[in-house]
Amino acid sequence: MQRWNHVAIVGVGLIGGSIGLALRERGLATQVIGIGRRPERLRKAKSLGAVTATSQAINEGVAGADLVVVCTPVAEIAGHVLEAAAAAQRAILTDAGSTKESIVKAVEAKLGKGNRFVGGHPLAGSEKSGVENARADLFEGRVVVVTPSRKTDSDCLSTVADFWSGLGASVLVMSPAEHDKALATTSHLPHLTAAAVARVTGQDELPLTAGGWRDLTRIAAGDSELWTQILLENRGHVLKSLGQFEKTVAAFRVALERGDRRKLLQLLTEGKQVRDAVGN
Amino acid sequence: MQRWNHVAIVGVGLIGGSIGLALRERGLATQVIGIGRRPERLRKAKSLGAVTATSQAINEGVAGADLVVVCTPVAEIAGHVLEAAAAAQRAILTDAGSTKESIVKAVEAKLGKGNRFVGGHPLAGSEKSGVENARADLFEGRVVVVTPSRKTDSDCLSTVADFWSGLGASVLVMSPAEHDKALATTSHLPHLTAAAVARVTGQDELPLTAGGWRDLTRIAAGDSELWTQILLENRGHVLKSLGQFEKTVAAFRVALERGDRRKLLQLLTEGKQVRDAVGN
Repeated sequence: MQRWNHVAIVGVGLIGGSIGLALRERGLATQVIGIGRRPERLRKAKSLGAVTATSQAINEGVAGADLVVVCTPVAEIAGHVLEAAAAAQRAILTDAGSTKESIVKAVEAKLGKGNRFVGGHPLAGSEKSGVENARADLFEGRVVVVTPSRKTDSDCLSTVADFWSGLGASVLVMSPAEHDKALATTSHLPHLTAAAVARVTGQDELPLTAGGWRDLTRIAAGDSELWTQILLENRGHVLKSLGQFEKTVAAFRVALERGDRRKLLQLLTEGKQVRDAVGN
Repeated sequence: MQRWNHVAIVGVGLIGGSIGLALRERGLATQVIGIGRRPERLRKAKSLGAVTATSQAINEGVAGADLVVVCTPVAEIAGHVLEAAAAAQRAILTDAGSTKESIVKAVEAKLGKGNRFVGGHPLAGSEKSGVENARADLFEGRVVVVTPSRKTDSDCLSTVADFWSGLGASVLVMSPAEHDKALATTSHLPHLTAAAVARVTGQDELPLTAGGWRDLTRIAAGDSELWTQILLENRGHVLKSLGQFEKTVAAFRVALERGDRRKLLQLLTEGKQVRDAVGN
């Protein structure tokens, strides 16, 4: 297992804070520097033991780092990676953003051959946010997708993969485009659907919601600003996935309009088969 | 709290079995007769302590009962209520079906003035089924909707309401139509949506599902045959609710196509506000 002398975490919320806690609990890093704009958040991260020191400036906080992990909202990640790469000349860099293609492209376009960044995405988010919800075991048994491009240096890739598996995660390697296509269906479409179901539920109907509605809509409580960014960054793939979803919903509607019992049963059974394949 | 000498439960699955366990644990019934077609299921219900005796015939099992609870699939409930009402001349009757209007109408059309049936719907279902998942505390703190019609005798209504609150539930009284309209949005639309999201998820994408997808699609694992019946029984209201949902999804799509950040943020925020009002 690789050990780090100095890890810098840009953005110390649920994910960044959990990375800090995990690194420290597992004895994988000597120094963990938390970087962020808001002093009260940095203080909280330090008091919770997620970081050993803090900084409000990226260039200052990453100076001398051997690893930088960028955990800011997706629309800001590429900029922060570039800023960190310029200030930490020898650091390997990764991120925790929910989309990958636009971030990887933006970084590679600027860094070219000297690129030491490999994208990452821990599938460990939740409707909760903030360092107060961070947990050292957040990544244990979870999948982290690592997304090299054709230009990625293989040593960088294995270092970044090793970093994430060091936190207890299973690492899947795929291209940024493959990642974004799959996540459009497994994460971004569900979010949009949850928000849509919640939105059409009337105030007077809320006492009649039970476990099904609550499970289904839980993710709709996530940060609306962050999710707007994610949907826009992955617009092309989300629109394709949404198109397929709208077709299936229309098939349900037509079957209901016609009272077509067989078709309804078929559609529900096809959904159940996929769900059953995943387990709890 | 009303105590019963002889309660007959028609259909001893998750709900029927949990009613039996709750009645016995709370000392509310002397005899609980489980009625069903499959002997092995009845044996299991008895060995789990959910019923004190069993019968494969409704007319035999309900003879002498003072309360009959019909917990069979929605398409069969009205027939079972009528069969039980004919054989148990003094019993009060209720059911646990997920739809109410068609059941109440079918029963009233036959029973007329002598009707001793009041519909019920415990919002306590789950993707699990079978008496092996039954629990004595299934109804504690849950809502049970009780649905009198304009013809319902008020003594019958209060007896049925008392029965459900005796199991630990909060009882909400509303008309069968009000119930079906609300549940179309809070339960039947979510089920259909969960199945649709699961159905558009490819086999190769399953390793990339995480907590959000799993929570959202959990109910899609429910019994497809039962849910086909529920959707068809409540077709009119489900179609209206589905129409509203499709409009919201289309609004998301148009906003994405246009890259309309403000509109996306608004739609997500409106969904979040509804979800936040419900809590965990």
